[in-house]
Amino acid sequence: MNHTWVTVPVGSPFPLENLPYGVFTPAGGGARVGVAIGAHVLDLAAVLADDTFAHGSLNPFMAQGRARWQEVRAAVVRLLTDEAHRPDVEPHLHRLDAVELGMPFEPADYVDFYASEHHAANIGRMFRPGSDPLTPQWKHLPIGYHGRAGTLVPSGTPVVRPSGQQRPSGEGALPGFGPSVRLDIEAEVGFVVGTPSALGTPVPVDDFREHVFGVTLVNDWSARDIQNWEYVPLGPFLGKSFATSVGHWVVPLEALEEARVAPPAREHELRPYLVEKEDWGLDLTLEVRLNGHLVATLPFAAMYWTPAQMLAHMTVNGASLRTGDFYASGTVSGPGEDQRGSLMELSWGGAEPVELPDGTVRTFLEDGDEVTITATAPGAGGARIGFGPVTGRILPAA
Amino acid sequence: MNHTWVTVPVGSPFPLENLPYGVFTPAGGGARVGVAIGAHVLDLAAVLADDTFAHGSLNPFMAQGRARWQEVRAAVVRLLTDEAHRPDVEPHLHRLDAVELGMPFEPADYVDFYASEHHAANIGRMFRPGSDPLTPQWKHLPIGYHGRAGTLVPSGTPVVRPSGQQRPSGEGALPGFGPSVRLDIEAEVGFVVGTPSALGTPVPVDDFREHVFGVTLVNDWSARDIQNWEYVPLGPFLGKSFATSVGHWVVPLEALEEARVAPPAREHELRPYLVEKEDWGLDLTLEVRLNGHLVATLPFAAMYWTPAQMLAHMTVNGASLRTGDFYASGTVSGPGEDQRGSLMELSWGGAEPVELPDGTVRTFLEDGDEVTITATAPGAGGARIGFGPVTGRILPAA
Repeated sequence: MNHTWVTVPVGSPFPLENLPYGVFTPAGGGARVGVAIGAHVLDLAAVLADDTFAHGSLNPFMAQGRARWQEVRAAVVRLLTDEAHRPDVEPHLHRLDAVELGMPFEPADYVDFYASEHHAANIGRMFRPGSDPLTPQWKHLPIGYHGRAGTLVPSGTPVVRPSGQQRPSGEGALPGFGPSVRLDIEAEVGFVVGTPSALGTPVPVDDFREHVFGVTLVNDWSARDIQNWEYVPLGPFLGKSFATSVGHWVVPLEALEEARVAPPAREHELRPYLVEKEDWGLDLTLEVRLNGHLVATLPFAAMYWTPAQMLAHMTVNGASLRTGDFYASGTVSGPGEDQRGSLMELSWGGAEPVELPDGTVRTFLEDGDEVTITATAPGAGGARIGFGPVTGRILPAA
Repeated sequence: MNHTWVTVPVGSPFPLENLPYGVFTPAGGGARVGVAIGAHVLDLAAVLADDTFAHGSLNPFMAQGRARWQEVRAAVVRLLTDEAHRPDVEPHLHRLDAVELGMPFEPADYVDFYASEHHAANIGRMFRPGSDPLTPQWKHLPIGYHGRAGTLVPSGTPVVRPSGQQRPSGEGALPGFGPSVRLDIEAEVGFVVGTPSALGTPVPVDDFREHVFGVTLVNDWSARDIQNWEYVPLGPFLGKSFATSVGHWVVPLEALEEARVAPPAREHELRPYLVEKEDWGLDLTLEVRLNGHLVATLPFAAMYWTPAQMLAHMTVNGASLRTGDFYASGTVSGPGEDQRGSLMELSWGGAEPVELPDGTVRTFLEDGDEVTITATAPGAGGARIGFGPVTGRILPAA
């Protein structure tokens, strides 16, 4: 890849090899689609003279399909590398610290998977002691469920501590009710669908690139006490539905070619609809910070199921896709004790409080706590690309 | 209520006391909002000279809030009762058999509850033999989960038999894969949200009328073999997400005043957020027909949880509502053997095939089968009002 004429600070998550898409509002302007480069965002509607980008959502562009996504990426690379374009383009670069960033896409349906073996086994041990930590189907299909699309919020949105029922303290007692005292995070990776599909027609696993536009980070805030009391037999509901934070930047799949890796070895023969020709494991490294302190480093390459397998599974029954459908990986956890993507796991259900370098300890989140998730991945030509943070601070219960 | 000048056939589900809303497309015209009266639909955009109704969705009107809903209902009653309006209004009545009916609203999130004690106990006995049929929280909160909003389809849409994984036949065997052989129905009642709410602020149980616009019928098609293999621990996913059929007509809450009844006696003291000042049990009677034969008659008044309680529970954690949010009751079953709203229950998991009057028998659905759910309720002044059918036919697997 060529060199860009834009000054990209050393260590920026947004070198030329990345070019993630987001929605920004410049001072005195309307929300529109931009591409991040270094410390700037490029106003696409202006430089491409295309109204598709003059919206507060990526959906109109994502709906145009993969050929158009490639064409636009190539055009942006040309504009940012050829000095001849600089005089026309430079006026449409806005400093990131001078614009407001928003929700990058308009969500249709939201599905959350459970694709980390280490996370599923950890949670199984804590929620269902005495049973096998993994349920019998776990290595035959990527388990998932629908979440609440209406409470997907962009990074930076404060999270009000939810209230709800909690398991009764003893036989015959009424359930507890009040603010959650086991408020947690789940560090995840999310996939945004661009190209829709027809009802009744499964999407083949090898068509992943045709449908998925890009990747962003997710914090699936979880109230463990509410979840633990409600979730049998129909799954998590209010323990998750109060807020799910989504990153401002959607990294296009094309920027992640160098990050593709084989997923872990399969323990069973897979049904053909889950067998990939291409490897769609992704070698992303996530970092979780609590009040600024690094508390976990998470290897996304350790996920048992790939996003291509998730997509194939989600549609194998003929369920259709819409532009804006969003699905997340589930908590990313690795085998190590500092590779766990939730406080539930890091503090082992509260039994082993996490000590922070400033001397404070945490089992679950306290009011005022701020959690930030970032990630990096190998990009083209040896570059390191980043996802931009997904962050949120806990407000006291209403 | 006054008499209407429109000829309403005897036994019509749509007398003046009903006035349900739907979306219709007349020959040569665009989709728009109408109100059903007898064998006709009234073009609201035309007679009220209001563009809010010139859309293929009720959402813009529903978003205007309860005062406006009451105003429009009163205006429609005036137009249909005062002979003085007849010359201006009559040209905008279209025969129902000459128009196409569509999806009445644009769905935001979709939640499915599990509010019938009889249904939950029947399913518990079959899915979890040896355990208590009801899980410990069942009578403390209305259990629910999010479904796929993108596969809500209007009545009449054919349903392609889904394929998926099924539980392995024995220890060490791979899961089965293929078209579902336990394809089922769930006869339910659905509630459409009009007025949104703010993130972080629960909706009080007594504000039900302020937020819920109306009621329609639902068939939550279910592939029991897919569901049984996938659903622990995160709940139903592909066993439900291939299609959920929704009635063409949304009966406004105001038409259901006479149907309000007390729900069954509570077994436990309820948490205050679930205690209703008004009774929102609803005395609807559903009928399920398979290939034209009545197979079940379902008493909605037997539901343990009311739709007002469902709404309060769904938002008690601060989850926000959007216009177009839709939530369904879960399968309506009563105590009787002919009061079961799914084939799973009617055939007791396939062990007791249902005999139809034409000599055919069914455990689960066969290709070509057509299922139709209807319902009636007491209306004002001794009238009987109806919901219009929700119907669908099974197509062979793709």
